[in-house]
Amino acid sequence: MPKRVDHQQRQREIAEALWRVAAGKGLPAATLRAVAAEAGISMNLVQYYFPAKDEMLRFAWLRVVELLAERADAGVDAASKTGDIRAVVRAHFAGILPSDERSRMLSAVQIAYFAADVTDAARAAERDQLPQYLSRTVADLLREAQVSGRVDAGYDCELEADALVAMTAGLVSGILVDVYTLEHALRLVDLRLGQLFSGDEPG
Amino acid sequence: MPKRVDHQQRQREIAEALWRVAAGKGLPAATLRAVAAEAGISMNLVQYYFPAKDEMLRFAWLRVVELLAERADAGVDAASKTGDIRAVVRAHFAGILPSDERSRMLSAVQIAYFAADVTDAARAAERDQLPQYLSRTVADLLREAQVSGRVDAGYDCELEADALVAMTAGLVSGILVDVYTLEHALRLVDLRLGQLFSGDEPG
Repeated sequence: MPKRVDHQQRQREIAEALWRVAAGKGLPAATLRAVAAEAGISMNLVQYYFPAKDEMLRFAWLRVVELLAERADAGVDAASKTGDIRAVVRAHFAGILPSDERSRMLSAVQIAYFAADVTDAARAAERDQLPQYLSRTVADLLREAQVSGRVDAGYDCELEADALVAMTAGLVSGILVDVYTLEHALRLVDLRLGQLFSGDEPG
Repeated sequence: MPKRVDHQQRQREIAEALWRVAAGKGLPAATLRAVAAEAGISMNLVQYYFPAKDEMLRFAWLRVVELLAERADAGVDAASKTGDIRAVVRAHFAGILPSDERSRMLSAVQIAYFAADVTDAARAAERDQLPQYLSRTVADLLREAQVSGRVDAGYDCELEADALVAMTAGLVSGILVDVYTLEHALRLVDLRLGQLFSGDEPG
């Protein structure tokens, strides 16, 4: 189906143009006109691929999530092969910290969507399942680690996962405005995991 | 000096108008025209109080910081009177979590400035001293608590303070998009303080 592939490829290129506008000037600046100009195509062509602006915004959001997840998954897969559950938990957090120009841009796009969500609860309700998803995943891993005795049974895995996810969200934001370096952010993740995984050697 | 008071009062009213625009539509939407319309005054009058747009943005930012700090300080002062250092640390974090319409709006304005900072490192460098300031304050308090034996001497106070501040930043954002309730956010703060203040009764 070369035609469908081409269609999706075009949509992705438009999403990339939308990101560049949103990362640079915020989501409200990502008008049909601005995105078409950034993509170097006509507004009519953008509308051919995305009949409604909301479809374009939604496609571009889902694509950011997909790319960020792919990036994190690569690290998680590598960590899983070591069989070290602490490394797997770490990979979930390390994988969402911006570490290069591309991931900084993708995180900046997330922030741009987030800033728009702050004023639009309906859109936020549709979108903000990322922290909850990550919390559930990490809580499951911590419970697994409790079974093998690497995490003390006294910890509340749901609350600990929520606390780690909230900290990592703060670190992502902080890295983007240079409050933290990536190295310092990873140090804080390792500090917290070292406390939770008391069955380990000190990390 | 009634004239000067009036001048400042007018500047504050313009800042309030700017916040309403920024909290609703993002900082790039806070043009001279939009702020004047929101304040119900002429663009000329806005320019009389703020000859340059950057002055207006800067004044409005400093005023947000001032109001948020006043709000947090009230809680910190009350906690200080109890002589309970854990309560003082808690007040520093509880005081920045949005808890009503007004503080949600002020936090949304912070997010709007932050989103603009993500794409403007020069401006960010001037502004982002809040997390560092809070980290230093909390680190000092934790060190004090180590001296009195309420926090174990093994903790690195700087890193622990950074981790708490990053978590709280994530909680502020999460509350604004209803990922966390205020109650849940406070529960996570208490969870972490309960771990650090091991010399306490369980919190």
